Amino acid sequence: MKDIIYLDNSATTKPCDKAIEYLNKALSDNWGNPSSLHTIGIKAEEILSSAKDLCAKAIGARCDEIFFTSGGTEANNLAINGAVLARAKRGNRIVTTEIEHPSVLEPIKALEKQGFEVIYLKPDESGVVSKESIKNAINKNTILVSIMLVNNEIGTIQPVRFAADTIKSVGAPALLHCDAVQAFGKLPVKVSDLGVDLLSFSGHKIHAPKGIGVLYRKKGVTISPLIYGGGQQDGLRPGTEPVPLVFALEGAVLSLPSINEAYDKMYELRKYAEEKLTATGIVTINSPNNSLPYILNVSVVGYRSETLLHFLDAKRIFVSSGSACSKGKLSYTLTALGLDKKRIDSALRISFSRYNSVDDIDKLCDALTEATKKLKRA
Amino acid sequence: MKDIIYLDNSATTKPCDKAIEYLNKALSDNWGNPSSLHTIGIKAEEILSSAKDLCAKAIGARCDEIFFTSGGTEANNLAINGAVLARAKRGNRIVTTEIEHPSVLEPIKALEKQGFEVIYLKPDESGVVSKESIKNAINKNTILVSIMLVNNEIGTIQPVRFAADTIKSVGAPALLHCDAVQAFGKLPVKVSDLGVDLLSFSGHKIHAPKGIGVLYRKKGVTISPLIYGGGQQDGLRPGTEPVPLVFALEGAVLSLPSINEAYDKMYELRKYAEEKLTATGIVTINSPNNSLPYILNVSVVGYRSETLLHFLDAKRIFVSSGSACSKGKLSYTLTALGLDKKRIDSALRISFSRYNSVDDIDKLCDALTEATKKLKRA
Repeated sequence: MKDIIYLDNSATTKPCDKAIEYLNKALSDNWGNPSSLHTIGIKAEEILSSAKDLCAKAIGARCDEIFFTSGGTEANNLAINGAVLARAKRGNRIVTTEIEHPSVLEPIKALEKQGFEVIYLKPDESGVVSKESIKNAINKNTILVSIMLVNNEIGTIQPVRFAADTIKSVGAPALLHCDAVQAFGKLPVKVSDLGVDLLSFSGHKIHAPKGIGVLYRKKGVTISPLIYGGGQQDGLRPGTEPVPLVFALEGAVLSLPSINEAYDKMYELRKYAEEKLTATGIVTINSPNNSLPYILNVSVVGYRSETLLHFLDAKRIFVSSGSACSKGKLSYTLTALGLDKKRIDSALRISFSRYNSVDDIDKLCDALTEATKKLKRA
Repeated sequence: MKDIIYLDNSATTKPCDKAIEYLNKALSDNWGNPSSLHTIGIKAEEILSSAKDLCAKAIGARCDEIFFTSGGTEANNLAINGAVLARAKRGNRIVTTEIEHPSVLEPIKALEKQGFEVIYLKPDESGVVSKESIKNAINKNTILVSIMLVNNEIGTIQPVRFAADTIKSVGAPALLHCDAVQAFGKLPVKVSDLGVDLLSFSGHKIHAPKGIGVLYRKKGVTISPLIYGGGQQDGLRPGTEPVPLVFALEGAVLSLPSINEAYDKMYELRKYAEEKLTATGIVTINSPNNSLPYILNVSVVGYRSETLLHFLDAKRIFVSSGSACSKGKLSYTLTALGLDKKRIDSALRISFSRYNSVDDIDKLCDALTEATKKLKRA
């Protein structure tokens, strides 16, 4: 897959060299079962420990606060179900936002069906839930607050820390969970700064292979497991640990550039993209100014997203019409922002990685301009 | 890890060449998100479909009956919880055996705590649960029967088909689940012959990497999901599918030798091992005659398992003191068989793969003989 312009990095990323190298090293040297008591098992267990250490360091946590899951979806489900089951006797309210990822919204909807009261916070026009609304929602009956750090469709950054402070000041029995899948590796994600009890991130959004994710659980916090078995990972997430994947994740985390330097570079790239796209006269920017520069949501009003996506595809330029996980459905995130249907119908999510350049933006602009000339208006 | 004698293949197996080759191929050519609507996504989706087809064929199923999980533990949990939640209105009884893997026993114990009645079938001296006991346990109130095909510690084969017939003749509303983790690739596993509704297997027991498993769910059968999210895999198991792992599993399944030929070869190897080990005069065979030849459980009475294991380890011979997933605990499987404590305390599980030879057995026998000379009796 050479000569492609991949601008869909919020859906998934290309595995980086070190992730692949580490994966293969573990497949040949550390393929043992980490629960085995012999040397082959111990060699596998060592990899687990070292990867745990690195993931812990990356978010300012302790290594016994790190649990490996099969990905972001499982980590989010484990956090949400686990917290609610563990605290069900202390209250009945769950607070979240309207624009969470389906792997947060759907388990919460399942709990709502079971009788829990759910408050869905609505973002304002800039895509952020207001501090006022957080304050009004969290009461002494609240057992879980789940707020994403970065939205996966528009890149807005949510006031997670404010939710932590509110839980404290209200004296709510709530655990605070943060879906940091789109933030990890792109923003400084420090659990103590955020004030979270639970935090999820995923390997394949930071150039590790698919099939590995992490749940941070603050020391001293108890949550219920989702699955039961041989007692691995403190019984919170049993099952033979996927050591080669874990080592690949270590490789990917080691390969992350300095967060701040990468952020500045990305800020320039997105600024260039915004200016250049706006200059075409055909593109409207949907992502608010203060959102994460890695994600740029735009609309080419008058042209349907899918049609544009396929036009770009033929030129080996790859963007998304929304979240990959909501395949084809009308974006509830853009709807929550209050955008009109025409803007939503023509939305494209452009999402960057460290492998993108201004050249990619130039080619995207040229292709979109060509599209509006060649395609029929919807 | 060269020049090792690895005889712990029931704990995990060394990834085979084709699994590694396929994994790497997918990491470079099919790393897209299969839910993405563009070519990069479609290329990933194609891999998923092809692997699903192959797994389906391997167990005589349809491709829409195959669901990928993170491993055997998750597949077992999904089957058990999913079946019980879906059928809870139709009855209250769960039937299983005392010698299931923890990933079956533990979720069932969690359901027992919630109020479900659980019947744990006790195996007879030959390690098999009797047809009589199955008949007595399954009644019209039974909503789930979960019986493993091959036991992970002693290799005994359970009468799964008889459970299917009993469910039918009783008219029980039960779904039949089979943990086939230790059977898949070693015995003919055909879902229609077994009469199962749900069946689990794991990649890393058949030379695929860790982190990938399969749940077969019979068409028309409804079970509840364990996790919720973006709707992937029909909503039964959402989360971005780990395409490279899935492709690695395809490679491992393609590399499986003919089940019957491999069985015959393994039968000869185990016969050789039994004879040779018995001839040392220090070894007692625990695995019954009619068990799967891939697993041979023995005792070196008078010497503790862990001590023997470490002695062998120093000679680069790797066996297990029991199930890897029950790290260090006294085997409940051997206890259920009615073996005395001395035999259980000195038990070793020797488990073969297609990469083992008689030479490995010879070296194991020599080492065990040396151990009984050099080590102090417990």
